[in-house]
Order: sequence, then C-alpha cells, then structure tokens
Amino acid sequence: MEDLVRELAEPGGKLVLLVMDGLGGLPHPETGRTELETARTPNLDALARKGSLGLHDPVAPGITPGSGPGHLGLFGYDPVENLVGRGVLSALGVGMELEATDVAARINFASKKDGKIVDRRAGRIPTEECVRLTDKLSRIRIPRVEILVRPEMQHRAVVVFRGQGLSPHVTDSDPQQTGVPPLKVEAREPGAASMAELANRFVEEVDRALADEWPANTVLLRGFDRQPDLPSFPERYGVNPAVIAVYPMYRGLARLVGMKVLDGGHGIAEEFDRLEAAWSDFDFFFVHVKPTDSAGEDGDFDRKVRTIEEVDAQIPRLLKLDPAAVLVTGDHSTPATFKAHTWHPVPFLIHSRWSRWENDAEGFGERACSRGQLGRVRAKELMPLLLAHAGRLAKFGA
Amino acid sequence: MEDLVRELAEPGGKLVLLVMDGLGGLPHPETGRTELETARTPNLDALARKGSLGLHDPVAPGITPGSGPGHLGLFGYDPVENLVGRGVLSALGVGMELEATDVAARINFASKKDGKIVDRRAGRIPTEECVRLTDKLSRIRIPRVEILVRPEMQHRAVVVFRGQGLSPHVTDSDPQQTGVPPLKVEAREPGAASMAELANRFVEEVDRALADEWPANTVLLRGFDRQPDLPSFPERYGVNPAVIAVYPMYRGLARLVGMKVLDGGHGIAEEFDRLEAAWSDFDFFFVHVKPTDSAGEDGDFDRKVRTIEEVDAQIPRLLKLDPAAVLVTGDHSTPATFKAHTWHPVPFLIHSRWSRWENDAEGFGERACSRGQLGRVRAKELMPLLLAHAGRLAKFGA
Repeated sequence: MEDLVRELAEPGGKLVLLVMDGLGGLPHPETGRTELETARTPNLDALARKGSLGLHDPVAPGITPGSGPGHLGLFGYDPVENLVGRGVLSALGVGMELEATDVAARINFASKKDGKIVDRRAGRIPTEECVRLTDKLSRIRIPRVEILVRPEMQHRAVVVFRGQGLSPHVTDSDPQQTGVPPLKVEAREPGAASMAELANRFVEEVDRALADEWPANTVLLRGFDRQPDLPSFPERYGVNPAVIAVYPMYRGLARLVGMKVLDGGHGIAEEFDRLEAAWSDFDFFFVHVKPTDSAGEDGDFDRKVRTIEEVDAQIPRLLKLDPAAVLVTGDHSTPATFKAHTWHPVPFLIHSRWSRWENDAEGFGERACSRGQLGRVRAKELMPLLLAHAGRLAKFGA
Repeated sequence: MEDLVRELAEPGGKLVLLVMDGLGGLPHPETGRTELETARTPNLDALARKGSLGLHDPVAPGITPGSGPGHLGLFGYDPVENLVGRGVLSALGVGMELEATDVAARINFASKKDGKIVDRRAGRIPTEECVRLTDKLSRIRIPRVEILVRPEMQHRAVVVFRGQGLSPHVTDSDPQQTGVPPLKVEAREPGAASMAELANRFVEEVDRALADEWPANTVLLRGFDRQPDLPSFPERYGVNPAVIAVYPMYRGLARLVGMKVLDGGHGIAEEFDRLEAAWSDFDFFFVHVKPTDSAGEDGDFDRKVRTIEEVDAQIPRLLKLDPAAVLVTGDHSTPATFKAHTWHPVPFLIHSRWSRWENDAEGFGERACSRGQLGRVRAKELMPLLLAHAGRLAKFGA
C-alpha cells in the first residue's frame, strides 16, 4: 500500500492536517456528553455537516498509543513497524540534529531521599529551573564520549551520547514507582555492556553534580534509542510539508519524517498566524494543538472543552485560506475522566468539495463520527483519504 | 484467507454477482441525493429492506481503482498483488484471446513533426479513422513473430506480439509529454533485449506505413504486459461460474480468472435473457452492466439514474430464478459530478434468506449502506460473505 500511494500521489491543492492532541473523550458523568460534544463549536459543526466524518484507530482496536505511534499513524506510517524511542523524540523535539550512531535517552529530574525515589518528577520543577540544572549537567565529562544535555519543559530533559561503539539496547533506570531506588541501566544484548556502564557512570556524575539541589537531586533515564530511518513523508506523498507546533516533541516527530519545522508561536491563535504567513510556501501543513491533551491528562474536562472552543474560533481563518482538503482529528483519546491516553477510537472530519453528502449530523463529535460516512479506519489510512479528497491520488490500474 | 476460503467452500445454491459499473455516486447539487438515491428502484429497495447492506472499498480507503483492480477486488483477489497490465486489459477489451506467451501493449495514435511528438492523441481521431489505420498496421510483417493490431476507441488501439522468446519487461515508448521525440523501447532486464528491438522495429514499420497520414502519423506504445497467471476462481470458491457482459473487457477479465464467457447480448434486458437461458448450466453468474459508468464518466446524472432504473426493472426476473444469494454492487464509484472514477466506497446489497434483520432503510443507496448491517469491508471480502449467505462456506475449526 505504501508503494502504491507513492506511485499514485500527484501535485495539487493544499492540505491541512489539524491535530488536537488527545481529542477523543468520554462522557461527562452528569451530562453524558464528551468534551468534543460539550464544546460549542459552530465552525467545526458546520464543517461536520458539509464534510465527511469517521472514527480512526491510531494503532489497532484496544491499543492505547503514546505520542510517537499516535502521530506516526496520522502521518500514514504503520506505528508498530516504525517505532521511535522516547529519547529520540525528545532530542529531535529540542532541535538537536542527531547523527546516525547517537544514542538518546529521556531525562526526568527526580527527588531521591535515602537512596530511594520519592518524586519521579521532582515536583514538576519550573522550566527555568530545568534550564539551570541541565546547564550544570552539560559540564559532565566522560572520556571517549561526547555528552549533550538539553532541557525540555518542567522536569523533562534529554541526553544524547555521541561516540564510537554505543548501543541503544539498554534498559531504563526509571523504576516507574516511588519508594524504591532507581534501577541500574543494564544491557539487553551482549554488545551493549559498555553502553550500560556509560549510562550508569553518567547517573553517578549527575548525582554528584546535583548533590546540593532540591527537589531535583537526581535523574531517571528511559527510552534509550537511536534515530530510526523512516521513509520520507515528502517523497511518499509528493508534498512539500511543514509543521506548526508549540511543543518541541511534535516538531521533532514531523522533522523525523522530513517536514520543514516552522516557528509555532506560543498559543493556538499564533499557530494560525504562522499558518497564514507560510501558506504560499508549502502545500501540506501539520498543525498541532497540545492543550487538549494536557487538560485531559489533568482530568480538567472544562479546560479541554475550552481548548476545543479556542480551536473552533480559528477555523474561519483556516477556511479563508481555501485549502483543497482539511483533516481535523486527534492522535489518540485523552478523556478527562480517565486522566490519561486511552484506546478509544478518535473522531475525525475531512472537509473538501468531494464529500459524499451533507450530514444531518448534530455536529462534530464522537457519536456523529461513529455514524459517519467514512466509517472506521486505521489512522494510517487517513493520509491516502486526505490526498484523495484533494484529487491528489491518481487512478490505480487501467 | 484465500487458502482458508478455498478449504471451506462447499457446493450449494446458485449465486449471482450483479455489478453496475461505477455504481457509487455523489449528491446532485440541487437535491443532495446521489444517482442511486435518486433512481426509482422499488425492487432493489425491497431487497434492501429484507437484505443486508454495507459499503466496500475496492482497494483501500482513498484509492481510486481502474476497471482491472475494481473487478479483481470483487472476484476476491487482492488487487494490489494481482495486477493486470494495460496492454492486456486493452487486448481483453477488444475481445482477443491471449496465449500465455503473448505480449500486449496499448497503442496511442499520435502526431509527430520534425521528429518530435506534437500531439500524444493525434487530435483524438474518430474511431472509424482508428479502424482504417489499424487495418494498415495489420499488414506489417516482421520475421519470426506474429503481430496482431486491433482498434479500440478514438486514438486508442492494441498490439499483440505472438511468438517465441518474447518478454513483457520493456519500457514504454510514450514520453508522456509533447515537444520531445518518442522514447526508444528499452529492456528492463537482460533477457528482454530482443523484445525491445522488436518493439522498436514495429514502430519504424508503423512510421513508414503512416508516412502520408495526418494527424495520426506515428504510435506511442505503453503498458507492455503478459496475461497474468491468476488463481482459478472456480477452484478457489468451488463454483462453476459464467460471465454475462456486453463489453469485451469485462468478459476478458472474467475469463482471466476462469469464468465461462456467455454471449452478453446488446443491452441490460438481453443480459437477463441470457441469465435465464443459462440458469441451469452454472451455479455462479457475474452479470456486468456498463452504462452506469459511461453515464458517470460523461457527467450525465440523469442517464446514470435511468440506467439504474433499467436494472431495477429486471430484478423480478432475477428473483424468479430463486438464487440462494445475490450481491448487487459496483466495482468503484463514478459520480456524475466528478466525471471520473473516484475513491468513494461503493454501496452493496446481499440478498439471501440469512440476513440478520429487516432494515428500516429507505431503500438501496449510499446513505442506507453506510448504516448497513454488514458495515464497511474491502471488496475482496465480499466473495466469502456471498458464499456464506448461501450456506456455501463450512465451519472453520472444530
């Protein structure tokens, strides 16, 4: 299928993939309506009535995806065959250009007392504090290897090990619980012993450097990985793509498949400013909205509703640009009642002039999408659908 | 799955696959109803209420199929794994019976001036002119090979090379643009050198034969291919199948998978005459109706509607034969508003005594099918469904 789409893809009108992270929801216990069904979204509702609705499974029914698989699915890549380690996502997200042999790992600043982890996130220290501490870690020197440490948001940072003979095949040091000591990094295959040693040595040096700090006096490492060699998105779909995202990880994911990274600004309205500004320079835009997911993770139903309404208010600006086809969806569900990613299929909407019929749908929501004319698909089938709706896939066979 | 179905298939009642080519549509801008929804089809509507509805994707969501992939899907073959080259489709389309070692290519009559192609379709010459010119080309003789040339419509024709040591693995001579000379046919693998030479020699002879003609003074060749070795439809499904089709290409496609070709007559009513006449001789009938697609390609909404109504009028004759199961569908969508094949999923209806419930559906149409009890499937999944509805697939496993 991938090769087929590559062969059939043609130049044409402009495409927009608008992702509200964690869009899918579950009903509010009092009203029986999900976040998306609760939000007042006159513009998305109008699109839903004229456009085509459906539900997508990011990976497969029952599978709850992380951000990596969720977005790779939306980009049309099989998320099981194309894995991206968390460390790599973090590194790309902060704008690091990885070399093929680099090994990256996600850092969580954490609090350790009497040798045991008491807070895996060091009280979610402010980002400025994270910047100060990573600056300290950047001074760590270990022979025969280059160590690059960069801050992300709050308690999150990333370390990249650069040198000869490194291996991504080592275990995490994060015990995923408090009240226990951090784990030693271990080799998952014989050739990785020196990498495990190097990682443990790094943690020792960190503990020394942060000995006088609190609450962030240690780090937990996880998601050691090397940059995967993913097929090029521009080549696969014959597009000239750009990403607009406030959060680094999503810019990183998009860069990994070959999208040009644009400045995402600092909020939803600014993202649409950037979209307008860059409209003539690209023919595919991936616009990523994060706060829907954050609100869901925080269990804040109302904030998720308000974020969706904030996106809705930008839709007229998007339509004024007259894209050939727009896909509005999420990368997974993050219901506020669940406070985490879930496996629930994700509502989607394709707007183009080639929808089959005007819906009597009540608007854009999970229920309407479950009765939608596009049915239920895998996320990786959405890109061909989007291209088709813009007339950008040629006929297959005579 | 293919092997499983082969193992489970059993003898049983008679089956009918009734294909209205390009059946799927898009709404009329004024009424909001598709061609199928507009047509007055009391008989199909009654079947829809008692039967089971669904939508199928001929290849995959977003993929627009040609006639070859569209029908191979309906026959239960993966259309991506089982390709039929353009030259072979053309040969089948004009009713040629290919031998296993024949190589066929599509001919476009074209206009050449000062060695460069100035019109790739020779001004779309009338079909009568095509017939006269192919008659000229039929007189070309090249030692040790038989050359068969047949006209198609307008500027299109087909050439079949018959002989020893031929190869389909050669490139097109069609440069796909004007202002440049035609390409030399080249071998795509070492063993194909003599085939390339033969094809180039043929083009030279054509140029000599057409030297005094205008605008059709040369030919462009593309889609060299040999008849594929497809799995046998009778063996796969344990059926004794026949095809009833007015147009040669569909008879040819059916013959490729091992269906017996019956005389299709000259119109829809005559096709059902043939069905009645042959009813006792076979237990599977593929009945192909072409004018739905032609009307869609011409953008003639009303003619497509009338063709569907014409088919509907024949349904009582079909039911009188008391088939065990009937599948009514299309091989793809050809909406009159789009004037070409599209990717939109195709409505289908299975009539048998084993439908799950009677529908409150308003009849046979895209909307009703999108809410149908059979959901959304790939075309290649329809044959097992049809067999099952006739009680012709045994239980799998103990």
